[in-house]
Amino acid sequence: MDAGIKLRMSRLFNADTGKSVIIAIDHGIEGVPKGLEDPMAKTEELLQSGIDALLLNPGLFRRVCKFWKRRNDPGVILAADYFISTTVPGRKAEAEEYRKILEIEDAIQLGADAIKMILVFGQRDLKLYAYNLEIVAAAIQKAHRCFGLPVMLETVLWGITSTKEELGSIQVLRDMMRIAVELGADILKLPSLGTYEEMAQMIQWSPVPVTVLGGQTHPDFKCVIEGVKKTIKAGACGIVFGRNVWQRDDLKEAVKALQIAVHSS
Amino acid sequence: MDAGIKLRMSRLFNADTGKSVIIAIDHGIEGVPKGLEDPMAKTEELLQSGIDALLLNPGLFRRVCKFWKRRNDPGVILAADYFISTTVPGRKAEAEEYRKILEIEDAIQLGADAIKMILVFGQRDLKLYAYNLEIVAAAIQKAHRCFGLPVMLETVLWGITSTKEELGSIQVLRDMMRIAVELGADILKLPSLGTYEEMAQMIQWSPVPVTVLGGQTHPDFKCVIEGVKKTIKAGACGIVFGRNVWQRDDLKEAVKALQIAVHSS
Amino acid sequence: MDAGIKLRMSRLFNADTGKSVIIAIDHGIEGVPKGLEDPMAKTEELLQSGIDALLLNPGLFRRVCKFWKRRNDPGVILAADYFISTTVPGRKAEAEEYRKILEIEDAIQLGADAIKMILVFGQRDLKLYAYNLEIVAAAIQKAHRCFGLPVMLETVLWGITSTKEELGSIQVLRDMMRIAVELGADILKLPSLGTYEEMAQMIQWSPVPVTVLGGQTHPDFKCVIEGVKKTIKAGACGIVFGRNVWQRDDLKEAVKALQIAVHSS
Amino acid sequence: MDAGIKLRMSRLFNADTGKSVIIAIDHGIEGVPKGLEDPMAKTEELLQSGIDALLLNPGLFRRVCKFWKRRNDPGVILAADYFISTTVPGRKAEAEEYRKILEIEDAIQLGADAIKMILVFGQRDLKLYAYNLEIVAAAIQKAHRCFGLPVMLETVLWGITSTKEELGSIQVLRDMMRIAVELGADILKLPSLGTYEEMAQMIQWSPVPVTVLGGQTHPDFKCVIEGVKKTIKAGACGIVFGRNVWQRDDLKEAVKALQIAVHSS
Amino acid sequence: MDAGIKLRMSRLFNADTGKSVIIAIDHGIEGVPKGLEDPMAKTEELLQSGIDALLLNPGLFRRVCKFWKRRNDPGVILAADYFISTTVPGRKAEAEEYRKILEIEDAIQLGADAIKMILVFGQRDLKLYAYNLEIVAAAIQKAHRCFGLPVMLETVLWGITSTKEELGSIQVLRDMMRIAVELGADILKLPSLGTYEEMAQMIQWSPVPVTVLGGQTHPDFKCVIEGVKKTIKAGACGIVFGRNVWQRDDLKEAVKALQIAVHSS
Repeated sequence: MDAGIKLRMSRLFNADTGKSVIIAIDHGIEGVPKGLEDPMAKTEELLQSGIDALLLNPGLFRRVCKFWKRRNDPGVILAADYFISTTVPGRKAEAEEYRKILEIEDAIQLGADAIKMILVFGQRDLKLYAYNLEIVAAAIQKAHRCFGLPVMLETVLWGITSTKEELGSIQVLRDMMRIAVELGADILKLPSLGTYEEMAQMIQWSPVPVTVLGGQTHPDFKCVIEGVKKTIKAGACGIVFGRNVWQRDDLKEAVKALQIAVHSS
Repeated sequence: MDAGIKLRMSRLFNADTGKSVIIAIDHGIEGVPKGLEDPMAKTEELLQSGIDALLLNPGLFRRVCKFWKRRNDPGVILAADYFISTTVPGRKAEAEEYRKILEIEDAIQLGADAIKMILVFGQRDLKLYAYNLEIVAAAIQKAHRCFGLPVMLETVLWGITSTKEELGSIQVLRDMMRIAVELGADILKLPSLGTYEEMAQMIQWSPVPVTVLGGQTHPDFKCVIEGVKKTIKAGACGIVFGRNVWQRDDLKEAVKALQIAVHSS
Repeated sequence: MDAGIKLRMSRLFNADTGKSVIIAIDHGIEGVPKGLEDPMAKTEELLQSGIDALLLNPGLFRRVCKFWKRRNDPGVILAADYFISTTVPGRKAEAEEYRKILEIEDAIQLGADAIKMILVFGQRDLKLYAYNLEIVAAAIQKAHRCFGLPVMLETVLWGITSTKEELGSIQVLRDMMRIAVELGADILKLPSLGTYEEMAQMIQWSPVPVTVLGGQTHPDFKCVIEGVKKTIKAGACGIVFGRNVWQRDDLKEAVKALQIAVHSS
Repeated sequence: MDAGIKLRMSRLFNADTGKSVIIAIDHGIEGVPKGLEDPMAKTEELLQSGIDALLLNPGLFRRVCKFWKRRNDPGVILAADYFISTTVPGRKAEAEEYRKILEIEDAIQLGADAIKMILVFGQRDLKLYAYNLEIVAAAIQKAHRCFGLPVMLETVLWGITSTKEELGSIQVLRDMMRIAVELGADILKLPSLGTYEEMAQMIQWSPVPVTVLGGQTHPDFKCVIEGVKKTIKAGACGIVFGRNVWQRDDLKEAVKALQIAVHSS
Repeated sequence: MDAGIKLRMSRLFNADTGKSVIIAIDHGIEGVPKGLEDPMAKTEELLQSGIDALLLNPGLFRRVCKFWKRRNDPGVILAADYFISTTVPGRKAEAEEYRKILEIEDAIQLGADAIKMILVFGQRDLKLYAYNLEIVAAAIQKAHRCFGLPVMLETVLWGITSTKEELGSIQVLRDMMRIAVELGADILKLPSLGTYEEMAQMIQWSPVPVTVLGGQTHPDFKCVIEGVKKTIKAGACGIVFGRNVWQRDDLKEAVKALQIAVHSS
């Protein structure tokens, strides 16, 4: 592995455990998310709570980078693209588009440790999916070839044509994971799916770290923590949580519980 | 903040008050606006009246730049794009298109302190909105990465599909502001909407200066001034006024009154 | 004004009078125009007749440039784009397309003093108009930023949807002129429209030279000359004539008369 | 004049008077100058004292740019090169070298209004003088061609072979000024030499603004002020003072006196 | 300060204390240093001992980067140049040369948090000193302009002509520090010189963090620790120690003692 990739990866994962509690606050690209109304204050609170990495959009990072003050502060993952489905925030999906919002050079100049991209399956227009795939592949190659920057790739079934069956299919998820690896992703970001035995099987072959996302806020946090423990036992290298953390009043306690679940499971 | 961004921002906002009276005369891109028939004479008059910054199109700026003579003359904000809705000036909107009309390199060579761009919500064609967003994101990143040039971003609901409800919705406006910040805008330009309490709430979280536009000419200028005072008290860092200034006979008095309202509120 | 722009402009306009007799022979891009069957001979004749500038297509210029022999020979304006309406010359308009046919670098390498572009209003497809506008804006910025090359912009209502009313509307013409100035055009090229008082009003605000075109051949040349005199008195900086010159047998006398009308009015 | 050059020049000179009080603090490139031990504090004091422009090195500007807060704050001139004569600060001149320390792109990104360069006459090695001249010429052309950035050129007789006669010769100074103009300098920076009648004669032909430097601290400040008044009367557009300002205890009073002498003479 | 510079600086200095224990192992560029015979083992040991940053050559870093495993592992400072004095390792100085051994792009690809460069005073050949200065200035500007990468600059009197007096002169050291700041260095690296009062005076004006190097191994480590405490009290932001750490048998205890001395003084 290249030195830069290795070094930057080391800032995202805890080496004692090889695991990571990553918090995502990149939701604002679609409008103000409940619980994230004041991203400045929330970011500061997250940094104080001891998370391992923060995933956010480049414009917001420019405004909050002043909170990074010590070596142990969280790794920085910048969102580099955007899947667009409405022309007015708050509307239901109207159609599908995909665009890059950040060049690798920007990410480097901003000091990011990684970028996150998405590969959206199930889009109605194959040409758009092909464009998405092309942009992702090119970004990964350039990030590797020129800058030693890791790329986290989230493979999602956000396309309009995705069927319920596909959305629940472990086989489809495995296929999508594999495509991400074949394209060169350094970290995978997946939804939680199936039993934990199935998850373990799905993860075990992966040559790159797999992180599992949290999704919608779950009313029972104990249940969330149990899920995280099982996820880690199933082989995940970390979690990427958003709403389940910053929509809670006890953010710091939530992070602490996640840290224990992730690093002590 | 980068040295260049900082220095150029300092030319747009008055540091004693942190506020700015910005006058927009970029309306000519759609044809001759009433009150702005002679842009040369009007620009000269505006410079003499003591405004803080002028927003105009690059072609016109080439013709009027001779009026800039002293360090305290207004900051220059160049319009860099254009939302097109008719193929003949004066017609009602026929369709929707968006195009860039200025490269960052041009703005720098012309000596601009900032560029202004628009992100148009409510467009019928999602592909066009996506194109708009991509152009804006790329321009912001390049302006920051290479040139230290600030970007003012105006988020507007000019699209054909925008509903009356959306146009009057504070939530939608907040969402649009947030998207602008996530993309990296250095200055926001917003319409005046809702009560001043709602405006204050809307503005207070913003990590970048918020300016509020004037819109159509209001018959009662006292009322306009009262509105400006409340806008500033609500947390706005300045106003971007056009017709309410240059459609008035007493332009200089109007600017003077705005200066007092903005800098002494 | 930039040195290069200034120097090249000075080659198009007579400094004693500030006026110019420009002859256009760029019609051949649509096929053989009556009166211009032998462009080589005609060009030579025009150069001998003492015109101020010649407007032609780049390919033809390569073949006739051998006739330029002295400093006082006419300025060279190269047509840089093309509004296309048929797939076979001679057919009636089938549809609408717009393409650039010359890069600024080509114009420079060929030694042109200016390029001429068109902005076509009234096109059926707004996307095509937006494309036209984008190409024109980019060419103007590049010609200015990199090469000091002036751009003459002709704003025309050639689009299929243009109504008779719009074609005869002084307001629409004023709007189009204004858009040209806001985009950065260095010279405007307009049709003759309205009374000469209206024309004077239309021209007087313009910060850049306005030239007026001749259009179709007029049977009464005296009448043409009278019109030119009044056009100049109305504030035009010159004329751009084609058919009214090279469809006449007495080309040299015609040019001489135009010279007197333009420079002695 | 290009828009950018014009706009940036307008930030260096006061348009009411056409004059400028420029303070130079770029001496630190050779070590700690007496009176400038704390460049941060001194810069802040200078900004508060109301100077028209500050001349400094790029590295220091990065640290003090935070003091720029309002549009009327001084213009920024960055030193872009360095004439080197010792290998240890404080030693007597050992030999002669010249190097560029700033690219035009850096100056632009930092938001500078101009750069300052030196052309050193009297160097022992003609090759080095030629290198100096080549670097200066290339920088001027690039600053003009690509960025609209003005270049202040200081022509000096710092070379080892310069004779006393040459150092005191008005003819040599005129020759050096002329070379600067022929190369494209936008502002000249000269030593005070000869009688004020001679200075007037020397300056009057210059097509670009001439500024006169202060040199070593003069014990009698009244005498300095008298000299400044005569310098301005002789046609200088401003002064570039360093030690005579920041080696004084009453810096603010000194600047005030200079302002009056420069702008009211 | 730019986002990237800020973020990368935060990895070198402990924000609670603002201080740093930096260990240098870049001595191998001149051959095998006593105590550093096995750089792999030593690096691993250093990482386990809890240092704040490691300064090393790029080639070695490629081989040891595998030891970086957690976010809190030391910041990485890569040596980017080399002052050469012999053609065979072990010989006495034969002459003087200076070369860059790392491009900024390499440092970025390797994931470095900063690069370290040297500016060597007292060189016999002024041309070589000028070359050194030019390389350093260009690297600083490029690191800042394009990549947001901090540059540590060590100003040293390694030149053959340096006199004993100069080597012991606080004034010369202050001058060299100042030159480094004027060129844009982000971190200074200095020898310990003079009394601690003099050191305090020397450091207090600096707008960038000052680190003090350890030099030759001192037999009495208690004495070393006392010196470090006083150095920190004098205003230094950290130490850059080499032989005094890795020539000791009790490396980990030594680092622990330095950590306490640096962060608790």
